[in-house]
Amino acid sequence: MKLTGYEQAAVGLAEARELRLAVEEFNAEYCAVLDNGEVEQWPEFFTDAAIYRVTSKENADMGMPVGLIYIDGKKMLRDRAVAIARTQMFAPRYNLHLVTNTRVLQQTAPGEFTAQANFILLQTLVEGPTTLHLAGRYYDRFVRSGHGLLLQERQVVYDTTMIATDLVYPV
Amino acid sequence: MKLTGYEQAAVGLAEARELRLAVEEFNAEYCAVLDNGEVEQWPEFFTDAAIYRVTSKENADMGMPVGLIYIDGKKMLRDRAVAIARTQMFAPRYNLHLVTNTRVLQQTAPGEFTAQANFILLQTLVEGPTTLHLAGRYYDRFVRSGHGLLLQERQVVYDTTMIATDLVYPV
Amino acid sequence: MKLTGYEQAAVGLAEARELRLAVEEFNAEYCAVLDNGEVEQWPEFFTDAAIYRVTSKENADMGMPVGLIYIDGKKMLRDRAVAIARTQMFAPRYNLHLVTNTRVLQQTAPGEFTAQANFILLQTLVEGPTTLHLAGRYYDRFVRSGHGLLLQERQVVYDTTMIATDLVYPV
Repeated sequence: MKLTGYEQAAVGLAEARELRLAVEEFNAEYCAVLDNGEVEQWPEFFTDAAIYRVTSKENADMGMPVGLIYIDGKKMLRDRAVAIARTQMFAPRYNLHLVTNTRVLQQTAPGEFTAQANFILLQTLVEGPTTLHLAGRYYDRFVRSGHGLLLQERQVVYDTTMIATDLVYPV
Repeated sequence: MKLTGYEQAAVGLAEARELRLAVEEFNAEYCAVLDNGEVEQWPEFFTDAAIYRVTSKENADMGMPVGLIYIDGKKMLRDRAVAIARTQMFAPRYNLHLVTNTRVLQQTAPGEFTAQANFILLQTLVEGPTTLHLAGRYYDRFVRSGHGLLLQERQVVYDTTMIATDLVYPV
Repeated sequence: MKLTGYEQAAVGLAEARELRLAVEEFNAEYCAVLDNGEVEQWPEFFTDAAIYRVTSKENADMGMPVGLIYIDGKKMLRDRAVAIARTQMFAPRYNLHLVTNTRVLQQTAPGEFTAQANFILLQTLVEGPTTLHLAGRYYDRFVRSGHGLLLQERQVVYDTTMIATDLVYPV
């Protein structure tokens, strides 16, 4: 999946709008789960063999394959989710995602396509102000399943170069 | 209306997408009225018996029924709108809403349904910088009328725990 | 094109939703080109006789016709794009647009209509934090062409009253 430069969206893809609306609804659910602290439901948005990666735009631009977080497979996602669910109890904060500019790019296989969306993640510490915690773009590969869309791959590429060391919670 | 925890969207609801798009258009109009300072038009987005409440996420999580602002009925909304229209003349500022992540949740009665959306409200004081004034979520109950959607209930739950004392303008 | 006060959206326009979704897709492509630094592709979103203007809300409210930037015609857009492409090499930064609250307002001629959308533009300097660079609204006039929508006019009206002097990059 191409993480740098402009890739034209598949305007010719007849179903592009339908898929775009479906991706928007997927992301609204995905973010609602995270923003409500239901991190143990988070792996259910992915396929069994899914890849989840969080990396800086600087790393992505240089083509560096590894980033801040790299998870391979739903089992690892579940392990991580359980670990985070335990950790978060000690550091209460509110998350709020805003996802916009959703684009469907290319059909990559039957029932599989790539998409992008811009996001900001706001964080509010209890008794503290709301801050822009992370801003960036989702680079996604979706597959259609009997239960709607699932992520085959989500690469979270963030613009922010200096990042709080506590980025453990999923984006 | 449930203000805490994750509530799954009604993916089974056949018309969910249609309603989601209608809610997005409703919120775009609602915010355009507020961002253009036409606060006296604001009550027209509500039913006669509507409830409008603004509260912190902390309060909502603790189940506290009252918040910063609680308005019961269109008459009270109109009284408040008139009062604000007079006040605002003395404190010129620009408002800008960004609303995303719209979700239609459940049909609660014939022609009535619940929905949520994330928002940020930016404020710019004349001669000052643009700041993130409020971030949070709309928890809404809509009814369909002959003139499109109307709010039966809007609960504005904001994440920000420390808030400027001047939150008088509708969100 | 009216840049001040609330203008009601054309709820009667049968195709308003279709156009709104098309405008969202247009803006997603437009912003992706800019956010990926492909500024030389930027003029291709405009008609030959297009107007592109960037001005403050304060100026727009006072009815001042000229703003910070005023470009008349695709040839001038292309000249500017080439100039920027050369300049930007010396000041690397990441741009990220979030566009929401898209509204289709009025059909102004056959195949031509007005629309608005709210945006924020985040900027990240290399080795620096992500900041809210610009917040405001697009006031647009679109025409339908054989290749989809094109901008006949884009007026970028920003709320921020104090602005960095380096606003050369397109918004």
